[in-house]
Amino acid sequence: FQKPVKPVKAEFTQSQKNRILSLLGPGEMVSFSKEKRSFAELESALMSQRKKDIREMYENSRENLLGKLERTITEFFVDMGFLEVKSPILIPFEYMERMGVGEDKKLSEQIFRVGDNMCLRPMLAPGLYNHLRKFDNVLPDPVRIFEIGPCYRKESDGNSHLEEFTMLNFCQMGSRCTKEELEFLIGEFLDFLGIEYEIVPDSCMVYGATMDVMYKNMELSSAVVGPIPMDMDWGIDKPWIGAGFGLERLLKAKHNYKNIKRAARSESYYNGICTTL
Amino acid sequence: FQKPVKPVKAEFTQSQKNRILSLLGPGEMVSFSKEKRSFAELESALMSQRKKDIREMYENSRENLLGKLERTITEFFVDMGFLEVKSPILIPFEYMERMGVGEDKKLSEQIFRVGDNMCLRPMLAPGLYNHLRKFDNVLPDPVRIFEIGPCYRKESDGNSHLEEFTMLNFCQMGSRCTKEELEFLIGEFLDFLGIEYEIVPDSCMVYGATMDVMYKNMELSSAVVGPIPMDMDWGIDKPWIGAGFGLERLLKAKHNYKNIKRAARSESYYNGICTTL
Ligand SMILES: Nc1ncnc2c1ncn2[C@@H]1O[C@H](COP(=O)(O)OP(=O)(O)OP(=O)(O)O)[C@@H](O)[C@H]1O
Ligand SMILES: Nc1ncnc2c1ncn2[C@@H]1O[C@H](COP(=O)(O)OP(=O)(O)OP(=O)(O)O)[C@@H](O)[C@H]1O
Ligand SMILES: [Mg+2]
Ligand SMILES: [Mg+2]
Ligand SMILES: [Mg+2]
Ligand SMILES: [Mg+2]
Repeated sequence: FQKPVKPVKAEFTQSQKNRILSLLGPGEMVSFSKEKRSFAELESALMSQRKKDIREMYENSRENLLGKLERTITEFFVDMGFLEVKSPILIPFEYMERMGVGEDKKLSEQIFRVGDNMCLRPMLAPGLYNHLRKFDNVLPDPVRIFEIGPCYRKESDGNSHLEEFTMLNFCQMGSRCTKEELEFLIGEFLDFLGIEYEIVPDSCMVYGATMDVMYKNMELSSAVVGPIPMDMDWGIDKPWIGAGFGLERLLKAKHNYKNIKRAARSESYYNGICTTL
Repeated sequence: FQKPVKPVKAEFTQSQKNRILSLLGPGEMVSFSKEKRSFAELESALMSQRKKDIREMYENSRENLLGKLERTITEFFVDMGFLEVKSPILIPFEYMERMGVGEDKKLSEQIFRVGDNMCLRPMLAPGLYNHLRKFDNVLPDPVRIFEIGPCYRKESDGNSHLEEFTMLNFCQMGSRCTKEELEFLIGEFLDFLGIEYEIVPDSCMVYGATMDVMYKNMELSSAVVGPIPMDMDWGIDKPWIGAGFGLERLLKAKHNYKNIKRAARSESYYNGICTTL
């Protein structure tokens, strides 16, 4: 007897699988075990589809999703009475020491240093602290400000971390700085974006107790009810509340991306669509 | 005889003069030689006025001028049929070598290095080259794209240079890439912003011949009619035109600021108004 020989299907290599995964549309799935086409056939079919997608975008809107989300959020917070600020991205490393993230601290390893004294901001808090201090006794109580812009952190793990990302941080100082007001603002904001969420207590090195805003297993935001001891080092002596959201994580949640890279400043994806075609 | 003693007016020190100058409103002037008030009186009067200005802004708009200009320009170019792109700000230093600004070149001294292999982009060209190459044969001819975002250069001189500034770069590749089309686009754009200008021929190390767009003695933009030899290194083999504008210079021209710092990402000025009050 001879066993009947099943035709051995050539398996895709890992790099072929990665290429195919990058070529999928945002919601799309592929089952490599059931795939009947050769790599070349499948790749070529997906490439045609993605070219069509990009042409359709160019036909219909021409707005970049990250830029557009920044504009949408800006309008929301301006309408809610928050003042739009734009602080430096390249900041003195001394600010980090004042944030409690000096060279001796583990978190400081995440910071991109620039020259001897500067660094790329890993968060918006220093700029917002400075603005709050300067606007205190100038603007009516409570002072409400927000910023949206690039932040930088060295990261190792994958699907929800970028080294270059875009943060939103809004805050309020003075009257009505309660947990309830903070939860209300977060709720209004995420309802406006149409993103489901859950708030869970957490803690971090910089702020102590935080309220983390989760979408499934992904942190969308850490929010804080001040005051906290560090305020003194920034010349702040009033109650405050604030929250920081990653815009690329909001896009990942909204568009169901598997990997946050699709939402990033990128030369590999445009509006979540692979551009290596 | 004794000469009659004129009361000697105490002159302001240089740092007092600088403080007063920073406290002036955008159009305002002061003549130190005719000023009758003491430094303390003058400073306090100007501080009250600036607090009023900031309160009025908070009452009336809450939009940041730099952010708002980015949005206004974005809308203009999207309406003109250009695709909005957002590329990385932190880029491989290798891109600079490919732009002809390797370590042996004088211009490379202006670049902020980050770690061994990365740098802060001093221009938007590398990201736009990569997008043009990827969109070629995907988007209909001519391909039109633009980007607005932070750029970084080490600078020494003063009134029109920032180390952190915001660039707009628009470009077109394929058909109709003529000097006339480029001049038309520049004209439409600056008419839209309501800024007078003049175009003068110039040249630079990176691009060779350029058309420089001037507002009085200040360069608003360098514009280029391709193709140029460097295109090959970026995989581009079609005609193109493009221009880069500094947004803070546009604000300086528009609002008649003496110093560009008033228009920058800053903790010292908000919408051109001093915040050290
Ligand atoms: N590397 C990153 N890439 C993308 N977004 C980020 C990154 N780090 C932080 N964010 C976003 O900024 C928000 C506020 O920053 P925060 O310092 O709380 O992050 P984090 O607690 O370090 O997040 P994680 O635990 O996921 O690393 C986060 O909730 C997230 O949405
Ligand atoms: N350091 C800077 N600060 C603010 N804007 C700048 C700076 N450098 C360049 N720009 C803006 O970007 C535009 C395009 O950049 P380009 O490389 O042509 O500048 P440049 O020729 O070096 O300008 P300049 O001769 O004034 O230094 C300039 O016309 C200007 O509007
Ligand atoms: Mg983290
Ligand atoms: Mg957190
Ligand atoms: Mg220069
Ligand atoms: Mg120039």
